[in-house]
Amino acid sequence: PRAVAAVSEKRKDAFGEEKKLAEAPSSLLKKGPDGWTSPMCEKFEKVIRQVQDEVCAAIEELDGKKFREDSWEREGGGGGISRVLQDGNVFEKAGVNVSVVYGTMPPEAYRAATGSTEKNGAAPGGAGRIPFFAAGVSSVVHPKNPMAPTCHFNYRYFETNVPQDVEGAPRAWWFGGGTDLTPSYLFDEDVKHFHQTLKDTCDQHDESFYPRFKSWCDDYFMIKHRGERRGLGGIFFDDMNDRDAEEILAFSTACGKAVVPAYIPLVAKRKDEPFTEEQKAWQQLRRGRYVEFNLVYDRGTTFGLKTGGRIESILMSLPLTARWEYDHQPEEGSEEWKLLDACKNPKDWV
Amino acid sequence: PRAVAAVSEKRKDAFGEEKKLAEAPSSLLKKGPDGWTSPMCEKFEKVIRQVQDEVCAAIEELDGKKFREDSWEREGGGGGISRVLQDGNVFEKAGVNVSVVYGTMPPEAYRAATGSTEKNGAAPGGAGRIPFFAAGVSSVVHPKNPMAPTCHFNYRYFETNVPQDVEGAPRAWWFGGGTDLTPSYLFDEDVKHFHQTLKDTCDQHDESFYPRFKSWCDDYFMIKHRGERRGLGGIFFDDMNDRDAEEILAFSTACGKAVVPAYIPLVAKRKDEPFTEEQKAWQQLRRGRYVEFNLVYDRGTTFGLKTGGRIESILMSLPLTARWEYDHQPEEGSEEWKLLDACKNPKDWV
Repeated sequence: PRAVAAVSEKRKDAFGEEKKLAEAPSSLLKKGPDGWTSPMCEKFEKVIRQVQDEVCAAIEELDGKKFREDSWEREGGGGGISRVLQDGNVFEKAGVNVSVVYGTMPPEAYRAATGSTEKNGAAPGGAGRIPFFAAGVSSVVHPKNPMAPTCHFNYRYFETNVPQDVEGAPRAWWFGGGTDLTPSYLFDEDVKHFHQTLKDTCDQHDESFYPRFKSWCDDYFMIKHRGERRGLGGIFFDDMNDRDAEEILAFSTACGKAVVPAYIPLVAKRKDEPFTEEQKAWQQLRRGRYVEFNLVYDRGTTFGLKTGGRIESILMSLPLTARWEYDHQPEEGSEEWKLLDACKNPKDWV
Repeated sequence: PRAVAAVSEKRKDAFGEEKKLAEAPSSLLKKGPDGWTSPMCEKFEKVIRQVQDEVCAAIEELDGKKFREDSWEREGGGGGISRVLQDGNVFEKAGVNVSVVYGTMPPEAYRAATGSTEKNGAAPGGAGRIPFFAAGVSSVVHPKNPMAPTCHFNYRYFETNVPQDVEGAPRAWWFGGGTDLTPSYLFDEDVKHFHQTLKDTCDQHDESFYPRFKSWCDDYFMIKHRGERRGLGGIFFDDMNDRDAEEILAFSTACGKAVVPAYIPLVAKRKDEPFTEEQKAWQQLRRGRYVEFNLVYDRGTTFGLKTGGRIESILMSLPLTARWEYDHQPEEGSEEWKLLDACKNPKDWV
């Protein structure tokens, strides 16, 4: 049985206070007039909870330590299950969350979220608040050994409904997600294995996916003020609704299931490599860059922090420890320089 | 500094690339048609460079290690002198910068910077770009010992000129600044000494200053998503131009000169206190909060990062090391809890 943690400090926000649950509920969805569900919501919740279970099981097996689990729900709608393994044998910090949120958002927020007023033809006239639903699994895994890379993934599904005071506009929906790798040291064969596994997964659904989503990932994880990416990419997609929802669900499911084979072998291979204090310090500097990206640019993080998400779940992505040295410049040609070069100039890995 | 930052959306475009100088120039100001100077600019530069010298001398004396100095200038105008002491005997990281920036900003940026279209009666009609000048000293000092507090201060002066295509609007100017303390452990007498020194300084200029600027400081350094402040405050003011510029210069000078007596004795007193590993970890968690505030909320940092400031000078404020533990809750009544309580509920210290 997983440890149940004390209720975190309660915060008032858009969706009401978090209420701690004694254990994870069989479903985070609620039926009836105050709830939100649809066949796709139900299917997607099953997928993300399965992915959470699979990834956590693989991490626990490698680490030997168990995840702590916190479940919560909100009066305003939705809830979540956060699992964290901190200061383990292999992992410094590993977090795997599922969450479901629903409520209404003002039209400006809808436009900001969709980048358009006409997604799926649902063009809210700007008058009413838009009922929305969002569910996702989100994870960041930071190993201890600087030779073992960090991995992040997130798969999410959105639905919106007709605005409260506009009649007849169709329901909108879309999928988004991605999986990406952030090493401190560059082992070409590791990065190739990671990208190849993602490409194979993509190719089984659409051969145009990998090249498009690989570039999208390189663009998204840019630390603009540094002119370097957070890591060595993977895949990233958003606003996906250009085909049957069942097809995209199948693709998202396959991506979720690809996390373990893409990533876990890399940690298994590197977790016991010898390393120096200098190499550990370099890892810590890269962790600092990770913090910079997440707090300054990551949409999920910045949006979550400013709109009342569950802080501890959002900031679970931050490493246990990080470091900032003034004007650190790796020596040209060094292993550190090679990693940085690959973050500045994305390569084709497969 | 707000005004500087809002100038451009692209790095390096607005001011050109940084050119490293072999040594600090006698002045960062430049005369002539491509430069910017005024009697107040010259006086203010002298003040901030003197403050930089005094604070660095006091830190070096306590630490035994010397600052590294980097000077640079930009084709587009201005330059800076960054001094950093990293991994010293007493200090984990201490940075003291002076910088001067000038150029032109679009009217929207001017309005964003001033919060008004009518500052000092200079109401640019929205047409032309506004020539501006900004100079400041900015510093963050992180000691190693968790019983010794972090200190931040910043004093700045702005001038704008008539818009390029509007005639006759008067020149605008204002001062801003502040000094604040961020302990990991609460020693009432230390915080009192710090606030009392600032209050004495304020009182010599205007008895309304300390109460107003103390509240302003408590408001500004709020980590909104945590519902807690970064630290235990001090003073903060901005947009100050409600009296003779010479008076405000004298006040800013006095504030700059108060940094050493307000802060350095606290580090001298605490630098050799014994501490446990747990206490060091708590300091590291508070450093994490420092990073959260600076990267998510601090105007100077966020605008600087997004608009092409010198990254290493801006991020000098970040600690050498920081830590994020999932859902860390200090035990009620513990020393850690007392500090957090004081960050959540600001007190009157004098």
